[in-house]
Amino acid sequence: MIGATGAVGREIIDLLENPKWPIDELLAFSSPRTAGKAIRFRDSSVESKILSPSNFPSVNVAFFAADADISKKLGPKFVETGAIMVDNSSAFRLDPDVPLVVPEVNGEAIGDARMIANPNCCAVILCMAIAPLRAFGRMRRIIVSTYQSASGAGREAMTELQESTRAALEGKPFEPQVFPHPYAFNLFSHNTPIGKSGFNTEEEKVIAETKRIMGDPDLGVNPTCIRVPVLRAHSESITVEFDGPAPSEEAVRRAITAFPGLQLVDDREANLFPMPSIASGSNDVFVGRIRRDPTNDRAISLFCCGDQIRKGAAWNAVQIAAQALRINLA
Amino acid sequence: MIGATGAVGREIIDLLENPKWPIDELLAFSSPRTAGKAIRFRDSSVESKILSPSNFPSVNVAFFAADADISKKLGPKFVETGAIMVDNSSAFRLDPDVPLVVPEVNGEAIGDARMIANPNCCAVILCMAIAPLRAFGRMRRIIVSTYQSASGAGREAMTELQESTRAALEGKPFEPQVFPHPYAFNLFSHNTPIGKSGFNTEEEKVIAETKRIMGDPDLGVNPTCIRVPVLRAHSESITVEFDGPAPSEEAVRRAITAFPGLQLVDDREANLFPMPSIASGSNDVFVGRIRRDPTNDRAISLFCCGDQIRKGAAWNAVQIAAQALRINLA
Repeated sequence: MIGATGAVGREIIDLLENPKWPIDELLAFSSPRTAGKAIRFRDSSVESKILSPSNFPSVNVAFFAADADISKKLGPKFVETGAIMVDNSSAFRLDPDVPLVVPEVNGEAIGDARMIANPNCCAVILCMAIAPLRAFGRMRRIIVSTYQSASGAGREAMTELQESTRAALEGKPFEPQVFPHPYAFNLFSHNTPIGKSGFNTEEEKVIAETKRIMGDPDLGVNPTCIRVPVLRAHSESITVEFDGPAPSEEAVRRAITAFPGLQLVDDREANLFPMPSIASGSNDVFVGRIRRDPTNDRAISLFCCGDQIRKGAAWNAVQIAAQALRINLA
Repeated sequence: MIGATGAVGREIIDLLENPKWPIDELLAFSSPRTAGKAIRFRDSSVESKILSPSNFPSVNVAFFAADADISKKLGPKFVETGAIMVDNSSAFRLDPDVPLVVPEVNGEAIGDARMIANPNCCAVILCMAIAPLRAFGRMRRIIVSTYQSASGAGREAMTELQESTRAALEGKPFEPQVFPHPYAFNLFSHNTPIGKSGFNTEEEKVIAETKRIMGDPDLGVNPTCIRVPVLRAHSESITVEFDGPAPSEEAVRRAITAFPGLQLVDDREANLFPMPSIASGSNDVFVGRIRRDPTNDRAISLFCCGDQIRKGAAWNAVQIAAQALRINLA
């Protein structure tokens, strides 16, 4: 586990507690800043170390949950030694030789690959929500506005949300360290650089990765990525346009109910729909607010929510590794 | 002022402090629950009373910021006595005899009306953001996802957001009173009843009122209204489709800059865009993230933010009254 002390690394280690994983030894690596930290795993304690050429290990699976440059530098070395690398960074996501996988959506892309990329969290959650809609004909256009949690920016961002909110409630000043904007009771456009297209890097990832995962380079994707003061689940408001007429709401509900890894939460009577308080801590993505778009008879709208650290990152990575190693986690 | 102790009523009274308002006397009315409260106005104290047939006043302007049934019951009585009624409730918003007005957008609709409806807060902010786009040809379709603050549900909702968040940070339980869902670090679909169309009452207001304010019954509006843990500013992620080709980003920026009541915040370099921390406390609506929609050459996307209590309610009401009475507040 590379990046063992971060939000995603810790969650991957938690998920590897599942006894279905035949693990002889877990090795934990992290940055010099957090090296030396003890990590609990299966009733023992693993010390997080700095990875260097002198302690380069021979392993079956290398999970990467660190920066893209670490993945680029060290990933190929692990693959050379025979390991399967599951990379949570953006380093190889658009590399045509590296499959970019959401197992329920395009798991077949894994094949015999030794290096597999775990997609951007928003793209994972979006693709999960729209994948069952493939049954109703080709989708041509996706308009999505996100409600992204702190966790996507790491553990420090979650702490900053909590600490800045505490300060706001106490009427005390707070100097943000992680984000360029105040976060307490506030929201802001995703703080990644913006290109000439007017989209920020996060949105560009959602556009490119969604096309790749859905296997349709011509799929139009128009995302607006917004950070909201929520701890660890991303929500997305989605409108999908089909090439042909839109399916009925009931057909969409059935398709979502039947799809692995999705839970339908669409109770109009009780006004109960997907929200972070339901999704946080779950491996599933929750979908609801399903309705025909009154402005276009080829379109439907829906709302989804998924735990950013789980299905948006750690759980999807663990699923990829299990499928690559033919381990049945069920 | 009917509803003088609520979030909007208090803000209207604050805005009437402006010395341009030739006010002899301010009368404050509220529910039995809050009657008797003292309200500061222009260095004196006004006691909030219960309105009854025995103390029915003769006034020039009656601002209503209470429930729709109060407006229906008492509004016409005020108009009969010669007052101008500015109604913040939904009671008369779709009444063809009552203009529904955002002064910068369709102020001419006021004419000599004695009863004028103040629109739903989301509709006000949406119409402000898209009004300058009328210069570029007919808009045919609006897709909007909202990020709505607590204030739209009143003062108690703002308190619930603060208190539930404080409890969450202290690890204490909290029983929500105003909302059916937890609010601390959470978000949820707007908690108004959902009709057969799949839209909740808030969304139905946005659809019907936007068509009316924009003067185009055929305008398609597809809203998704979401409550987020923000105190008093609503944000909206908007995609607009035109009948013809979309305008250039630069032309849109110029049109927004020139439009009264709007402020352009669209600094890609500094990653600075509209957000509640900028909009809160301002009468203006802030617009940015302007970009061409890569999935449709007739569409553009943008993001806006406005103070729900100010332009979304109190300020718009005060502007309406000023225009009806030919008072120049500038």
